[in-house]
Amino acid sequence: MNNNQESFGVRRLYHTPFYPACRKIRVMMAEMGVSAELVEEPAWEQRPQFLAMNPAGELPILIDGDGRCVCGSYAIAEYLDEGYHVGDFIGTTLDERAEVRRLVAWADTKMLKEVTQPLIYEKYFRHLRKQGNPDSGKIRQAKAHLVYHMGYFEQLLKQRSWMASDRYTLADIALASHLSLCDYMGDVAWKDNSYLKRWYALMKSRPAFRAILTDRVRGIKPPEHYENPDF
Amino acid sequence: MNNNQESFGVRRLYHTPFYPACRKIRVMMAEMGVSAELVEEPAWEQRPQFLAMNPAGELPILIDGDGRCVCGSYAIAEYLDEGYHVGDFIGTTLDERAEVRRLVAWADTKMLKEVTQPLIYEKYFRHLRKQGNPDSGKIRQAKAHLVYHMGYFEQLLKQRSWMASDRYTLADIALASHLSLCDYMGDVAWKDNSYLKRWYALMKSRPAFRAILTDRVRGIKPPEHYENPDF
Repeated sequence: MNNNQESFGVRRLYHTPFYPACRKIRVMMAEMGVSAELVEEPAWEQRPQFLAMNPAGELPILIDGDGRCVCGSYAIAEYLDEGYHVGDFIGTTLDERAEVRRLVAWADTKMLKEVTQPLIYEKYFRHLRKQGNPDSGKIRQAKAHLVYHMGYFEQLLKQRSWMASDRYTLADIALASHLSLCDYMGDVAWKDNSYLKRWYALMKSRPAFRAILTDRVRGIKPPEHYENPDF
Repeated sequence: MNNNQESFGVRRLYHTPFYPACRKIRVMMAEMGVSAELVEEPAWEQRPQFLAMNPAGELPILIDGDGRCVCGSYAIAEYLDEGYHVGDFIGTTLDERAEVRRLVAWADTKMLKEVTQPLIYEKYFRHLRKQGNPDSGKIRQAKAHLVYHMGYFEQLLKQRSWMASDRYTLADIALASHLSLCDYMGDVAWKDNSYLKRWYALMKSRPAFRAILTDRVRGIKPPEHYENPDF
Protein backbone atom coordinates (compact mmCIF):
# COMPACT_ATOMS: atom_id res chain seq x y z
CA MET A 1 0.00 0.00 0.00
CA ASN A 2 0.98 3.61 -0.40
CA ASN A 3 3.18 5.58 1.85
CA ASN A 4 1.19 8.50 3.05
CA GLN A 5 3.22 11.58 3.93
CA GLU A 6 0.53 12.91 6.25
CA SER A 7 0.24 9.81 8.38
CA PHE A 8 3.90 8.86 8.29
CA GLY A 9 5.14 7.86 11.70
CA VAL A 10 1.73 7.90 13.35
CA ARG A 11 0.65 4.34 14.14
CA ARG A 12 -3.02 4.06 15.06
CA LEU A 13 -5.09 1.23 16.47
CA TYR A 14 -8.86 1.51 16.05
CA HIS A 15 -10.49 -0.44 18.85
CA THR A 16 -13.33 -0.63 21.33
CA PRO A 17 -12.58 -1.31 24.99
CA PHE A 18 -15.22 -3.99 25.54
CA TYR A 19 -14.21 -6.34 22.74
CA PRO A 20 -11.78 -9.22 23.47
CA ALA A 21 -9.95 -9.30 20.10
CA CYS A 22 -9.10 -5.59 20.55
CA ARG A 23 -7.74 -6.26 24.04
CA LYS A 24 -5.62 -9.10 22.66
CA ILE A 25 -3.95 -6.87 20.07
CA ARG A 26 -3.41 -4.02 22.54
CA VAL A 27 -1.70 -6.36 25.00
CA MET A 28 0.39 -8.04 22.28
CA MET A 29 1.58 -4.64 21.02
CA ALA A 30 2.37 -3.46 24.54
CA GLU A 31 4.36 -6.64 25.22
CA MET A 32 6.32 -6.05 22.00
CA GLY A 33 6.92 -2.39 22.80
CA VAL A 34 5.07 -1.36 19.60
CA SER A 35 3.24 1.80 20.61
CA ALA A 36 0.15 3.17 18.88
CA GLU A 37 -2.32 5.97 19.27
CA LEU A 38 -5.57 4.35 20.42
CA VAL A 39 -8.70 5.52 18.61
CA GLU A 40 -12.01 4.38 20.04
CA GLU A 41 -14.36 3.37 17.23
CA PRO A 42 -18.09 2.78 17.83
CA ALA A 43 -18.13 -0.13 15.37
CA TRP A 44 -21.89 -0.64 15.74
CA GLU A 45 -22.50 2.81 14.16
CA GLN A 46 -20.79 1.57 10.95
CA ARG A 47 -19.46 5.05 10.03
CA PRO A 48 -18.60 5.37 6.32
CA GLN A 49 -14.96 6.28 7.15
CA PHE A 50 -14.74 3.14 9.30
CA LEU A 51 -16.21 0.91 6.58
CA ALA A 52 -13.78 2.47 4.08
CA MET A 53 -10.91 1.16 6.25
CA ASN A 54 -12.50 -2.24 6.86
CA PRO A 55 -15.52 -3.17 4.70
CA ALA A 56 -16.15 -6.09 7.08
CA GLY A 57 -17.14 -3.47 9.67
CA GLU A 58 -15.05 -5.14 12.34
CA LEU A 59 -12.39 -4.20 14.87
CA PRO A 60 -9.50 -3.97 15.54
CA ILE A 61 -7.85 -2.11 12.64
CA LEU A 62 -4.16 -1.19 12.64
CA ILE A 63 -2.93 1.72 10.54
CA ASP A 64 0.81 1.34 10.65
CA GLY A 65 3.28 4.23 10.52
CA ASP A 66 3.72 3.90 6.75
CA GLY A 67 -0.03 4.07 6.12
CA ARG A 68 -0.48 0.31 5.72
CA CYS A 69 -3.93 -0.81 6.88
CA VAL A 70 -4.22 -4.24 8.52
CA CYS A 71 -7.75 -5.44 9.35
CA GLY A 72 -8.87 -7.90 11.97
CA SER A 73 -7.11 -9.50 14.90
CA TYR A 74 -5.98 -12.59 12.95
CA ALA A 75 -4.17 -10.56 10.24
CA ILE A 76 -2.82 -8.05 12.78
CA ALA A 77 -1.35 -10.65 15.16
CA GLU A 78 0.39 -12.50 12.31
CA TYR A 79 1.56 -9.19 10.81
CA LEU A 80 3.10 -8.08 14.11
CA ASP A 81 4.84 -11.46 14.39
CA GLU A 82 6.19 -11.39 10.82
CA GLY A 83 6.85 -7.69 10.45
CA TYR A 84 8.33 -6.67 13.80
CA HIS A 85 10.32 -9.69 15.00
CA VAL A 86 10.05 -8.82 18.70
CA GLY A 87 9.65 -11.81 21.00
CA ASP A 88 8.04 -15.07 19.88
CA PHE A 89 4.45 -14.59 20.91
CA ILE A 90 3.07 -17.04 18.33
CA GLY A 91 5.67 -19.62 19.37
CA THR A 92 9.07 -20.87 18.26
CA THR A 93 8.57 -24.45 16.99
CA LEU A 94 5.91 -25.78 14.59
CA ASP A 95 4.28 -27.63 17.50
CA GLU A 96 4.17 -24.60 19.75
CA ARG A 97 2.83 -22.40 16.94
CA ALA A 98 0.07 -24.95 16.18
CA GLU A 99 -0.86 -25.03 19.86
CA VAL A 100 -0.86 -21.23 20.26
CA ARG A 101 -3.07 -20.84 17.18
CA ARG A 102 -5.42 -23.62 18.32
CA LEU A 103 -5.99 -21.75 21.59
CA VAL A 104 -6.24 -18.33 19.95
CA ALA A 105 -8.99 -19.79 17.75
CA TRP A 106 -10.54 -21.34 20.88
CA ALA A 107 -10.69 -17.87 22.45
CA ASP A 108 -11.77 -15.84 19.44
CA THR A 109 -14.22 -18.33 17.93
CA LYS A 110 -15.51 -20.85 20.48
CA MET A 111 -15.30 -18.82 23.68
CA LEU A 112 -16.47 -15.68 21.87
CA LYS A 113 -19.58 -17.44 20.57
CA GLU A 114 -20.44 -19.49 23.65
CA VAL A 115 -19.50 -17.08 26.44
CA THR A 116 -18.08 -13.62 25.83
CA GLN A 117 -20.26 -12.36 22.99
CA PRO A 118 -23.59 -13.27 24.63
CA LEU A 119 -22.46 -11.85 28.00
CA ILE A 120 -21.19 -8.58 26.48
CA TYR A 121 -24.26 -8.22 24.31
CA GLU A 122 -26.83 -8.97 27.00
CA LYS A 123 -25.13 -6.97 29.75
CA TYR A 124 -23.69 -4.04 27.83
CA PHE A 125 -24.36 -3.58 24.10
CA ARG A 126 -28.09 -4.30 24.30
CA HIS A 127 -28.54 -1.29 26.57
CA LEU A 128 -26.07 0.86 24.58
CA ARG A 129 -27.94 0.18 21.35
CA LYS A 130 -31.38 0.47 22.99
CA GLN A 131 -32.35 -3.10 22.08
CA GLY A 132 -34.52 -3.97 25.06
CA ASN A 133 -33.89 -5.81 28.30
CA PRO A 134 -31.23 -8.46 28.90
CA ASP A 135 -32.29 -12.04 28.18
CA SER A 136 -31.64 -13.81 31.49
CA GLY A 137 -31.83 -17.24 29.84
CA LYS A 138 -28.98 -16.35 27.48
CA ILE A 139 -26.91 -14.97 30.36
CA ARG A 140 -27.46 -18.15 32.37
CA GLN A 141 -26.46 -20.31 29.41
CA ALA A 142 -23.29 -18.27 28.75
CA LYS A 143 -22.31 -18.51 32.42
CA ALA A 144 -22.79 -22.29 32.32
CA HIS A 145 -20.52 -22.43 29.26
CA LEU A 146 -17.96 -20.29 31.10
CA VAL A 147 -17.76 -22.90 33.87
CA TYR A 148 -16.91 -25.53 31.24
CA HIS A 149 -14.28 -23.32 29.54
CA MET A 150 -12.63 -22.50 32.87
CA GLY A 151 -12.50 -26.19 33.75
CA TYR A 152 -10.71 -26.86 30.47
CA PHE A 153 -8.17 -24.08 31.06
CA GLU A 154 -7.59 -25.41 34.59
CA GLN A 155 -6.73 -28.82 33.09
CA LEU A 156 -4.25 -27.24 30.65
CA LEU A 157 -2.53 -25.36 33.49
CA LYS A 158 -2.10 -28.54 35.51
CA GLN A 159 0.14 -29.78 32.68
CA ARG A 160 1.97 -26.58 31.68
CA SER A 161 3.16 -23.29 33.20
CA TRP A 162 1.27 -21.27 30.58
CA MET A 163 -1.70 -22.04 28.33
CA ALA A 164 0.06 -23.28 25.19
CA SER A 165 3.47 -24.34 26.53
CA ASP A 166 5.98 -23.50 29.24
CA ARG A 167 6.32 -19.99 27.81
CA TYR A 168 4.06 -16.97 27.92
CA THR A 169 2.47 -16.64 24.45
CA LEU A 170 -0.38 -15.08 22.50
CA ALA A 171 -2.60 -17.94 23.74
CA ASP A 172 -2.34 -16.51 27.27
CA ILE A 173 -3.03 -13.01 26.00
CA ALA A 174 -6.06 -14.12 23.96
CA LEU A 175 -7.66 -16.19 26.72
CA ALA A 176 -6.94 -13.59 29.42
CA SER A 177 -8.54 -10.93 27.22
CA HIS A 178 -11.78 -12.90 27.22
CA LEU A 179 -11.60 -13.75 30.92
CA SER A 180 -10.89 -10.11 31.82
CA LEU A 181 -14.18 -9.07 30.24
CA CYS A 182 -16.09 -11.85 31.99
CA ASP A 183 -14.40 -10.77 35.22
CA TYR A 184 -15.34 -7.12 34.65
CA MET A 185 -18.97 -8.25 34.50
CA GLY A 186 -18.55 -10.23 37.73
CA ASP A 187 -19.11 -13.62 36.14
CA VAL A 188 -15.92 -15.50 37.05
CA ALA A 189 -15.82 -17.94 39.99
CA TRP A 190 -12.05 -17.90 40.53
CA LYS A 191 -12.13 -19.91 43.74
CA ASP A 192 -13.14 -23.11 41.90
CA ASN A 193 -10.01 -23.12 39.72
CA SER A 194 -6.80 -22.57 41.68
CA TYR A 195 -4.34 -23.10 38.81
CA LEU A 196 -6.31 -20.71 36.63
CA LYS A 197 -6.49 -18.15 39.43
CA ARG A 198 -2.73 -18.27 39.97
CA TRP A 199 -2.15 -17.89 36.22
CA TYR A 200 -4.53 -14.93 36.05
CA ALA A 201 -2.74 -13.29 39.01
CA LEU A 202 0.48 -13.52 36.96
CA MET A 203 -1.32 -12.01 33.97
CA LYS A 204 -2.60 -9.12 36.10
CA SER A 205 0.89 -8.36 37.35
CA ARG A 206 2.23 -7.82 33.80
CA PRO A 207 2.34 -4.08 32.97
CA ALA A 208 1.16 -4.74 29.38
CA PHE A 209 -1.97 -6.46 30.70
CA ARG A 210 -2.63 -4.09 33.61
CA ALA A 211 -3.08 -1.25 31.13
CA ILE A 212 -6.30 -2.72 29.71
CA LEU A 213 -7.74 -3.21 33.20
CA THR A 214 -7.96 0.55 33.74
CA ASP A 215 -10.64 0.90 31.01
CA ARG A 216 -14.14 1.59 32.23
CA VAL A 217 -17.44 1.53 30.35
CA ARG A 218 -20.48 3.52 31.35
CA GLY A 219 -23.10 1.75 33.42
CA ILE A 220 -21.06 -1.22 34.63
CA LYS A 221 -18.74 -1.11 37.61
CA PRO A 222 -16.24 -3.97 37.83
CA PRO A 223 -15.92 -5.92 41.12
CA GLU A 224 -13.43 -4.81 43.81
CA HIS A 225 -10.84 -7.44 42.90
CA TYR A 226 -10.86 -6.62 39.16
CA GLU A 227 -7.50 -4.82 38.93
CA ASN A 228 -5.87 -6.39 41.97
CA PRO A 229 -3.27 -9.12 41.29
CA ASP A 230 -3.82 -10.39 44.86
CA PHE A 231 -7.41 -11.53 44.74
CA MET B 1 4.67 -34.11 19.90
CA ASN B 2 5.74 -37.72 19.84
CA ASN B 3 6.61 -39.76 16.85
CA ASN B 4 4.19 -42.60 16.72
CA GLN B 5 5.51 -45.74 15.08
CA GLU B 6 2.04 -47.01 14.23
CA SER B 7 0.90 -43.88 12.42
CA PHE B 8 4.25 -42.98 10.91
CA GLY B 9 3.88 -41.96 7.30
CA VAL B 10 0.06 -41.96 7.34
CA ARG B 11 -1.21 -38.40 7.11
CA ARG B 12 -4.91 -38.07 7.92
CA LEU B 13 -7.36 -35.22 7.56
CA TYR B 14 -10.56 -35.46 9.60
CA HIS B 15 -13.24 -33.47 7.79
CA THR B 16 -16.88 -33.26 6.84
CA PRO B 17 -17.84 -32.56 3.23
CA PHE B 18 -20.42 -29.86 3.89
CA TYR B 19 -18.24 -27.52 5.95
CA PRO B 20 -16.36 -24.67 4.19
CA ALA B 21 -13.23 -24.63 6.41
CA CYS B 22 -12.71 -28.34 5.64
CA ARG B 23 -13.02 -27.68 1.92
CA LYS B 24 -10.48 -24.87 2.21
CA ILE B 25 -7.85 -27.12 3.80
CA ARG B 26 -8.50 -29.98 1.36
CA VAL B 27 -8.02 -27.64 -1.61
CA MET B 28 -4.93 -25.99 -0.09
CA MET B 29 -3.33 -29.41 0.52
CA ALA B 30 -4.20 -30.59 -2.99
CA GLU B 31 -2.69 -27.42 -4.48
CA MET B 32 0.49 -28.04 -2.45
CA GLY B 33 0.64 -31.71 -3.41
CA VAL B 34 0.39 -32.72 0.26
CA SER B 35 -1.72 -35.87 0.17
CA ALA B 36 -3.75 -37.20 3.09
CA GLU B 37 -6.17 -39.97 3.84
CA LEU B 38 -9.58 -38.33 4.24
CA VAL B 39 -11.60 -39.46 7.25
CA GLU B 40 -15.20 -38.27 7.43
CA GLU B 41 -16.03 -37.25 10.98
CA PRO B 42 -19.64 -36.62 12.08
CA ALA B 43 -18.57 -33.71 14.31
CA TRP B 44 -22.10 -33.15 15.62
CA GLU B 45 -21.98 -36.59 17.34
CA GLN B 46 -19.01 -35.40 19.45
CA ARG B 47 -17.45 -38.87 19.70
CA PRO B 48 -15.04 -39.22 22.65
CA GLN B 49 -12.14 -40.17 20.30
CA PHE B 50 -12.86 -37.03 18.26
CA LEU B 51 -12.96 -34.79 21.36
CA ALA B 52 -9.71 -36.38 22.52
CA MET B 53 -8.06 -35.09 19.33
CA ASN B 54 -9.72 -31.67 19.44
CA PRO B 55 -11.47 -30.73 22.70
CA ALA B 56 -13.04 -27.79 20.85
CA GLY B 57 -15.11 -30.37 18.97
CA GLU B 58 -14.40 -28.73 15.64
CA LEU B 59 -13.15 -29.72 12.20
CA PRO B 60 -10.85 -29.96 10.32
CA ILE B 61 -8.11 -31.85 12.20
CA LEU B 62 -4.82 -32.81 10.57
CA ILE B 63 -2.81 -35.74 11.94
CA ASP B 64 0.51 -35.39 10.18
CA GLY B 65 2.73 -38.32 9.20
CA ASP B 66 4.81 -37.98 12.38
CA GLY B 67 1.72 -38.12 14.60
CA ARG B 68 1.53 -34.36 15.16
CA CYS B 69 -2.05 -33.20 15.66
CA VAL B 70 -3.01 -29.76 14.28
CA CYS B 71 -6.53 -28.53 15.10
CA GLY B 72 -8.67 -26.04 13.24
CA SER B 73 -8.38 -24.45 9.83
CA TYR B 74 -6.46 -21.38 11.08
CA ALA B 75 -3.67 -23.44 12.71
CA ILE B 76 -3.60 -25.96 9.84
CA ALA B 77 -3.31 -23.36 7.05
CA GLU B 78 -0.48 -21.55 8.83
CA TYR B 79 1.20 -24.87 9.67
CA LEU B 80 1.12 -25.98 6.02
CA ASP B 81 2.59 -22.62 5.00
CA GLU B 82 5.38 -22.72 7.61
CA GLY B 83 6.09 -26.43 7.66
CA TYR B 84 5.92 -27.45 4.00
CA HIS B 85 7.22 -24.44 2.03
CA VAL B 86 5.34 -25.31 -1.16
CA GLY B 87 3.98 -22.30 -3.04
CA ASP B 88 3.07 -19.03 -1.35
CA PHE B 89 -0.61 -19.49 -0.68
CA ILE B 90 -0.69 -17.02 2.24
CA GLY B 91 1.22 -14.46 0.16
CA THR B 92 4.77 -13.24 -0.36
CA THR B 93 4.90 -9.66 0.99
CA LEU B 94 3.59 -8.31 4.31
CA ASP B 95 0.88 -6.43 2.41
CA GLU B 96 -0.25 -9.45 0.45
CA ARG B 97 -0.23 -11.65 3.56
CA ALA B 98 -2.34 -9.09 5.48
CA GLU B 99 -4.81 -8.98 2.58
CA VAL B 100 -5.01 -12.78 2.23
CA ARG B 101 -5.64 -13.15 5.97
CA ARG B 102 -8.23 -10.35 5.98
CA LEU B 103 -10.20 -12.20 3.30
CA VAL B 104 -9.74 -15.63 4.89
CA ALA B 105 -11.22 -14.14 8.08
CA TRP B 106 -13.98 -12.58 5.96
CA ALA B 107 -14.85 -16.04 4.63
CA ASP B 108 -14.51 -18.07 7.81
CA THR B 109 -16.00 -15.54 10.23
CA LYS B 110 -18.25 -13.01 8.52
CA MET B 111 -19.51 -15.04 5.56
CA LEU B 112 -19.79 -18.16 7.70
CA LYS B 113 -21.99 -16.37 10.23
CA GLU B 114 -24.11 -14.31 7.85
CA VAL B 115 -24.51 -16.72 4.94
CA THR B 116 -23.00 -20.20 4.87
CA GLN B 117 -23.72 -21.45 8.38
CA PRO B 118 -27.43 -20.50 8.38
CA LEU B 119 -27.91 -21.93 4.86
CA ILE B 120 -26.14 -25.19 5.67
CA TYR B 121 -27.94 -25.54 8.98
CA GLU B 122 -31.42 -24.77 7.71
CA LYS B 123 -31.14 -26.77 4.49
CA TYR B 124 -29.03 -29.73 5.59
CA PHE B 125 -27.98 -30.17 9.23
CA ARG B 126 -31.40 -29.42 10.69
CA HIS B 127 -32.83 -32.43 8.87
CA LEU B 128 -29.75 -34.60 9.57
CA ARG B 129 -30.00 -33.90 13.30
CA LYS B 130 -33.80 -34.17 13.35
CA GLN B 131 -34.24 -30.59 14.58
CA GLY B 132 -37.50 -29.70 12.87
CA ASN B 133 -38.36 -27.85 9.68
CA PRO B 134 -36.22 -25.22 7.96
CA ASP B 135 -36.81 -21.62 9.06
CA SER B 136 -37.66 -19.85 5.81
CA GLY B 137 -37.06 -16.42 7.36
CA LYS B 138 -33.47 -17.36 8.21
CA ILE B 139 -32.91 -18.75 4.71
CA ARG B 140 -34.28 -15.54 3.15
CA GLN B 141 -32.03 -13.41 5.36
CA ALA B 142 -28.92 -15.49 4.55
CA LYS B 143 -29.67 -15.25 0.82
CA ALA B 144 -30.00 -11.48 1.10
CA HIS B 145 -26.62 -11.36 2.85
CA LEU B 146 -25.16 -13.53 0.08
CA VAL B 147 -26.17 -10.91 -2.51
CA TYR B 148 -24.23 -8.30 -0.53
CA HIS B 149 -21.15 -10.54 -0.16
CA MET B 150 -21.15 -11.37 -3.88
CA GLY B 151 -21.38 -7.68 -4.74
CA TYR B 152 -18.32 -7.04 -2.59
CA PHE B 153 -16.31 -9.85 -4.22
CA GLU B 154 -17.35 -8.52 -7.66
CA GLN B 155 -15.89 -5.11 -6.70
CA LEU B 156 -12.61 -6.73 -5.61
CA LEU B 157 -12.32 -8.62 -8.90
CA LYS B 158 -12.80 -5.44 -10.92
CA GLN B 159 -9.53 -4.24 -9.38
CA ARG B 160 -7.48 -7.46 -9.27
CA SER B 161 -7.11 -10.74 -11.16
CA TRP B 162 -7.67 -12.74 -7.97
CA MET B 163 -9.34 -11.94 -4.65
CA ALA B 164 -6.37 -10.73 -2.61
CA SER B 165 -3.89 -9.70 -5.30
CA ASP B 166 -2.83 -10.55 -8.85
CA ARG B 167 -1.93 -14.07 -7.72
CA TYR B 168 -4.05 -17.07 -6.79
CA THR B 169 -3.94 -17.40 -2.97
CA LEU B 170 -5.64 -18.93 0.03
CA ALA B 171 -8.16 -16.05 -0.10
CA ASP B 172 -9.49 -17.47 -3.38
CA ILE B 173 -9.59 -20.97 -1.93
CA ALA B 174 -11.40 -19.83 1.24
CA LEU B 175 -14.03 -17.73 -0.55
CA ALA B 176 -14.60 -20.34 -3.27
CA SER B 177 -15.09 -23.00 -0.59
CA HIS B 178 -17.98 -20.99 0.83
CA LEU B 179 -19.44 -20.12 -2.56
CA SER B 180 -19.24 -23.77 -3.67
CA LEU B 181 -21.50 -24.79 -0.79
CA CYS B 182 -23.97 -21.99 -1.53
CA ASP B 183 -23.88 -23.07 -5.18
CA TYR B 184 -24.52 -26.71 -4.24
CA MET B 185 -27.70 -25.55 -2.50
CA GLY B 186 -28.71 -23.57 -5.60
CA ASP B 187 -28.48 -20.17 -3.94
CA VAL B 188 -26.00 -18.32 -6.14
CA ALA B 189 -27.20 -15.89 -8.84
CA TRP B 190 -24.05 -15.96 -11.00
CA LYS B 191 -25.52 -13.93 -13.83
CA ASP B 192 -25.58 -10.74 -11.76
CA ASN B 193 -21.81 -10.77 -11.19
CA SER B 194 -19.80 -11.34 -14.36
CA TYR B 195 -16.32 -10.87 -12.86
CA LEU B 196 -17.15 -13.24 -10.03
CA LYS B 197 -18.59 -15.79 -12.45
CA ARG B 198 -15.44 -15.70 -14.61
CA TRP B 199 -13.26 -16.08 -11.50
CA TYR B 200 -15.36 -19.03 -10.28
CA ALA B 201 -15.08 -20.68 -13.73
CA LEU B 202 -11.28 -20.48 -13.32
CA MET B 203 -11.59 -21.98 -9.83
CA LYS B 204 -13.71 -24.85 -11.16
CA SER B 205 -11.14 -25.65 -13.83
CA ARG B 206 -8.37 -26.19 -11.24
CA PRO B 207 -7.95 -29.95 -10.53
CA ALA B 208 -7.41 -29.27 -6.78
CA PHE B 209 -10.78 -27.53 -6.60
CA ARG B 210 -12.68 -29.88 -8.92
CA ALA B 211 -12.02 -32.72 -6.47
CA ILE B 212 -14.27 -31.22 -3.77
CA LEU B 213 -17.09 -30.71 -6.27
CA THR B 214 -17.56 -34.46 -6.66
CA ASP B 215 -18.77 -34.79 -3.03
CA ARG B 216 -22.47 -35.43 -2.59
CA VAL B 217 -24.58 -35.33 0.56
CA ARG B 218 -27.78 -37.30 1.01
CA GLY B 219 -31.02 -35.50 0.34
CA ILE B 220 -29.69 -32.55 -1.68
CA LYS B 221 -28.92 -32.67 -5.37
CA PRO B 222 -26.75 -29.84 -6.68
CA PRO B 223 -27.89 -27.90 -9.76
CA GLU B 224 -26.85 -29.03 -13.27
CA HIS B 225 -24.09 -26.43 -13.62
CA TYR B 226 -22.49 -27.25 -10.24
CA GLU B 227 -19.38 -29.08 -11.50
CA ASN B 228 -19.25 -27.55 -14.95
CA PRO B 229 -16.58 -24.84 -15.51
CA ASP B 230 -18.64 -23.57 -18.49
CA PHE B 231 -21.82 -22.42 -16.80
